Amino acid sequence: MRATVLSAPREVHIDQVPDARIIEPTDAVIRVVVACICGSDLWPYRGFDPLPETGRRMGHEAIGVVEEVGSEVRTVRKGDLVLMPFAFSDGTCVFCSEGLHTACTHGGFFSYHTEGAQAEAVRIPFADGTLYKVTAREDDKALLPHLLTLTDVMGTGHHAAVTARVRQGTTAAIIGDGAVGLCGVIAAKRLGAERIILLGRHPDRIALAREFGATDIVTERGDAAIEAVRERTGGLGAHSVLECVGTEEAMRTAVGIVRPGGAIGRVGVPHHEGIPAGPTFYNNITISGGPAPTRAYMDELLPDVLEGRILPGRVFDRTLPLEQVAEGYRAMDERQALKVMLVP
Amino acid sequence: MRATVLSAPREVHIDQVPDARIIEPTDAVIRVVVACICGSDLWPYRGFDPLPETGRRMGHEAIGVVEEVGSEVRTVRKGDLVLMPFAFSDGTCVFCSEGLHTACTHGGFFSYHTEGAQAEAVRIPFADGTLYKVTAREDDKALLPHLLTLTDVMGTGHHAAVTARVRQGTTAAIIGDGAVGLCGVIAAKRLGAERIILLGRHPDRIALAREFGATDIVTERGDAAIEAVRERTGGLGAHSVLECVGTEEAMRTAVGIVRPGGAIGRVGVPHHEGIPAGPTFYNNITISGGPAPTRAYMDELLPDVLEGRILPGRVFDRTLPLEQVAEGYRAMDERQALKVMLVP
Repeated sequence: MRATVLSAPREVHIDQVPDARIIEPTDAVIRVVVACICGSDLWPYRGFDPLPETGRRMGHEAIGVVEEVGSEVRTVRKGDLVLMPFAFSDGTCVFCSEGLHTACTHGGFFSYHTEGAQAEAVRIPFADGTLYKVTAREDDKALLPHLLTLTDVMGTGHHAAVTARVRQGTTAAIIGDGAVGLCGVIAAKRLGAERIILLGRHPDRIALAREFGATDIVTERGDAAIEAVRERTGGLGAHSVLECVGTEEAMRTAVGIVRPGGAIGRVGVPHHEGIPAGPTFYNNITISGGPAPTRAYMDELLPDVLEGRILPGRVFDRTLPLEQVAEGYRAMDERQALKVMLVP
Repeated sequence: MRATVLSAPREVHIDQVPDARIIEPTDAVIRVVVACICGSDLWPYRGFDPLPETGRRMGHEAIGVVEEVGSEVRTVRKGDLVLMPFAFSDGTCVFCSEGLHTACTHGGFFSYHTEGAQAEAVRIPFADGTLYKVTAREDDKALLPHLLTLTDVMGTGHHAAVTARVRQGTTAAIIGDGAVGLCGVIAAKRLGAERIILLGRHPDRIALAREFGATDIVTERGDAAIEAVRERTGGLGAHSVLECVGTEEAMRTAVGIVRPGGAIGRVGVPHHEGIPAGPTFYNNITISGGPAPTRAYMDELLPDVLEGRILPGRVFDRTLPLEQVAEGYRAMDERQALKVMLVP
């Protein structure tokens, strides 16, 4: 079958690989209906993450149709349309029971610890605990993009908002105008934030953020951004800061704009050493977040997607056939595309 | 009047200073009944904090009797017995209203931003927002030590437990066997923790921790301490970690022993640069805490003290006349005393 492999920084291509197949009795194999490229895929693409010598199978978000299940799989069967969250999880361990599937004692991340989803098919470990069955049609082109975001970016934006403790009537600031940041805007609005300040600089993304509910846009960076947010919040800062980037500058900005007693929800994969210990202490700042348990959030977010109350799939601004995956990475790397959907 | 001044590292003495007096109409002056030395006083004593050229007036915990009030003071009057929390606060700003008095927009810390409490008397800025009236007698020698802890260490231990999200039935680990750590044990038990693991090494303090409710003691340090806590928690770590020290090693230990999805409540004044960004992210750890709003916690903690359900005053193992303050610092610095009470 065909699958996306990153063999070296910026060298991403379609390879012929062995067909996905059942290995453990708890596995399933899904045929990929739609997959996509994540902002976090750009870290290894740009050479910021170490690569295995044999390259890395890319992709961790997909909607698929179950092709085959192992003998111990109980909750999905051949023909089911399913969401594949970016992490696999056994569904039964203490952390899965608590809704923190990304800490599953037997789990891991697609593309890092097992195959990738930018492919014709994927083997799914712990199919019962990982896959989420939906009752949509695989040819529902209008609905699929929105559903696809529940496998990562919408669930991740929601996690940022939850861990940043967004509440009714509060002020939320979102750092980053990528797909996760924009889904963070949706999540902040959905949880009742009254002021929603997006820190971003790209006109198309800003326009989408406004449609999603952003009330203020801050295009400055660094100290100027901190000052701009403070000006807009009566000098106090934002109750909640959604850190959707992962760089040292983004964290520094988050600490600078959060209100005393407020919270920072981190979902940008950190590519920096430390969180400043002093200013966060003296201001009683809560820092939270991490890899989002998107599997756990599907129950809560799915009805809003199915009933059209939120439209997170609008973050996809380009659709390409799987063969053109390299073009998709190039476009996202150069910020010509916000998020690229791939159709095998 | 006589007051304690730290003029250089380890040079602490009683000076004659101008009498405390009303400056603002919102001030009060209290005569100090009992004060004490805090573990955090040892940072400047040991030379870790910069000192003003004229020295620093020490002490931030006291019980006093109101001697005089300014023309705008409404809630306390001459003769009242009052608790003086380590921070002064106006009681009316947005943060005070939210219960975060240590972020008061007009507030500050005793000894840093105004006079110190290891003295015969103290000027209290914003007396209405700062002082907390109690209906005890100033000669109640049995009760006063317990009340005195509400001005800092018991409120701070409680803050560590609250921000570390201690809940009924969970496992809490406390780093540090100083007075705050021991009060953290009381707080964790009070909030319902089922397992309470104290990381400490001093036999007297360990004995007291056990009386306060610690179920497990870990005397190892560094990686061995991390391993010992993990062994005692089925490899998972503690739901809540109360970091009551403030060093880099203490934070590293906290990150090493907290369970995925768990929380670290920091109350040790940080004397290190950064909180590790990566491991806290991948494990969805919440880091919270800061200077405790002890003024806000008095309502909740006072009844337990008055009715004898908690006995935090047992952390005082030595009482000295104010004149012997230098001996008190020496004893605490050399760990011969856990916490020293001073009587002017």
